[in-house]
Amino acid sequence: MPQYFSETGSVEAVNARMGEDASPRLAQVMASLVGHLHAFIKDVQLTQEEWACAIDFLTRTGQLCSEQRQEFILLSDTLGVSMLVDAINNRRPSGATENTVLGPFHVAGAPRREMGANISADGKGESCLFEGRVLDPDGKPIQGARLDVWSDNADGYYDVQQPGAQPRWNNRGIFETGADGCYRFRGIKPVSYPIPHDGPVGKMLAALGRHPYRPAHMHFIVTAPGFQTVVTHTFVGDDPYIASDAVFGVKDALVAPFQKVSDGETLWRSPFDFVLVPVSP
Amino acid sequence: MPQYFSETGSVEAVNARMGEDASPRLAQVMASLVGHLHAFIKDVQLTQEEWACAIDFLTRTGQLCSEQRQEFILLSDTLGVSMLVDAINNRRPSGATENTVLGPFHVAGAPRREMGANISADGKGESCLFEGRVLDPDGKPIQGARLDVWSDNADGYYDVQQPGAQPRWNNRGIFETGADGCYRFRGIKPVSYPIPHDGPVGKMLAALGRHPYRPAHMHFIVTAPGFQTVVTHTFVGDDPYIASDAVFGVKDALVAPFQKVSDGETLWRSPFDFVLVPVSP
Ligand SMILES: [Fe+2]
Ligand SMILES: [Fe+2]
Repeated sequence: MPQYFSETGSVEAVNARMGEDASPRLAQVMASLVGHLHAFIKDVQLTQEEWACAIDFLTRTGQLCSEQRQEFILLSDTLGVSMLVDAINNRRPSGATENTVLGPFHVAGAPRREMGANISADGKGESCLFEGRVLDPDGKPIQGARLDVWSDNADGYYDVQQPGAQPRWNNRGIFETGADGCYRFRGIKPVSYPIPHDGPVGKMLAALGRHPYRPAHMHFIVTAPGFQTVVTHTFVGDDPYIASDAVFGVKDALVAPFQKVSDGETLWRSPFDFVLVPVSP
Repeated sequence: MPQYFSETGSVEAVNARMGEDASPRLAQVMASLVGHLHAFIKDVQLTQEEWACAIDFLTRTGQLCSEQRQEFILLSDTLGVSMLVDAINNRRPSGATENTVLGPFHVAGAPRREMGANISADGKGESCLFEGRVLDPDGKPIQGARLDVWSDNADGYYDVQQPGAQPRWNNRGIFETGADGCYRFRGIKPVSYPIPHDGPVGKMLAALGRHPYRPAHMHFIVTAPGFQTVVTHTFVGDDPYIASDAVFGVKDALVAPFQKVSDGETLWRSPFDFVLVPVSP
């Protein structure tokens, strides 16, 4: 007599159905997923009304997705999933610069700029000098490292969120280090901003008593031949949201100094060194 | 110093963010969900490519949903989630008729028919007499029980899947018991059919080496004042898919006899009694 589905044997009933021609990795991932999903439902004794609510939430989340909006990535971000997957896949030795979330506002193909150039083109915000070095784990400068940098403007919007209203490539640029491994560019001291919160994820955050804000940060993608790519931010430490980033992106080592200066050109200076780990041979 | 997100403390970091104004039940459900979701990701050491694949799968699943198609319910069904939630919420004493999945093809408002009427209107299939009693747990007949019944036609399609090509309300009807608690109607011996498998869920089943078929079944919703509603099917026991229902709906006690007869009117007879549990006072 076949073993049919039962409440106690639910996981086994589903996973026993997997065919032998499924890829071993897919079979492993799905078997674990079914196990944890059923355990969750049993733990909370999910009601049929709650199940219907979950189906509706997932449906609306998917239906909002478009070329301009990825609500499932927002969901992953706000549940700490994006940071967890990043952490698992980018474990680095102590002293190496850590990753954080990429975020939805990176745009490939930003203009290459000369060292020291100003990436802020809209004249808004408090000018800030970002400078430091790109180093290997022994502290030796890396030549030819590329830094792809971007931030919001003083109103809390990335240029791509306000096409037409901000100059093209506002607060974006790509810089390449010379033999000294140094980088230097002018931008603005970034400001905190909310993630898009007019959809299902925003409603979820509100129901959980959570705000949608991210603490102010400058984005960096640092690449160099022979080294692991670093996708990260530097954070403004005294931001009111530093301890409650809606997407859990903050790490101790990514909180950078923002020092008030007045050299005539900038109001702030934010020094930060990047330490890259060689790709395993 | 605030406690930021870390791989080991990922669950605590997310759940600590819950506000005090969140409803206690929502907070409980979400905390459990985050715990199991992170445990799954850690168990399988999910790669970033797999994460991206999951985001894409969920996005396509949501985008396929419409008034006519609920792909997330199909996903829930094929992962055993629908049956598990039903089992948790409808535990019944031994001897009571068990529930199974509702399925997507129920239509409210089917015509009320006289006992003995034929619900098959397209002239296709092998005629079958469905008959039995609706009883309370003591074996006493329930008067005024309503049976809302529906099945596919001999080609494996419900009428709503072929509007225009099948007579309206083909293989559907509502019957009400008299003082003897008996029901009796003519239909066809149902046939197995695939769930919709041209979308992401169908691709998932194929990748897992699973077929999309459901064993042949007659759907019933049995209601009676003062009794818990039964949402169930009766199954054809010798169906080739009886042990591998794509949505895990089969239960031992729901496999009904289908006896070959030749009384001139029908080829088959399927006797089945329903036992309803009183609503708790
Ligand atoms: Fe950002
Ligand atoms: Fe069905």
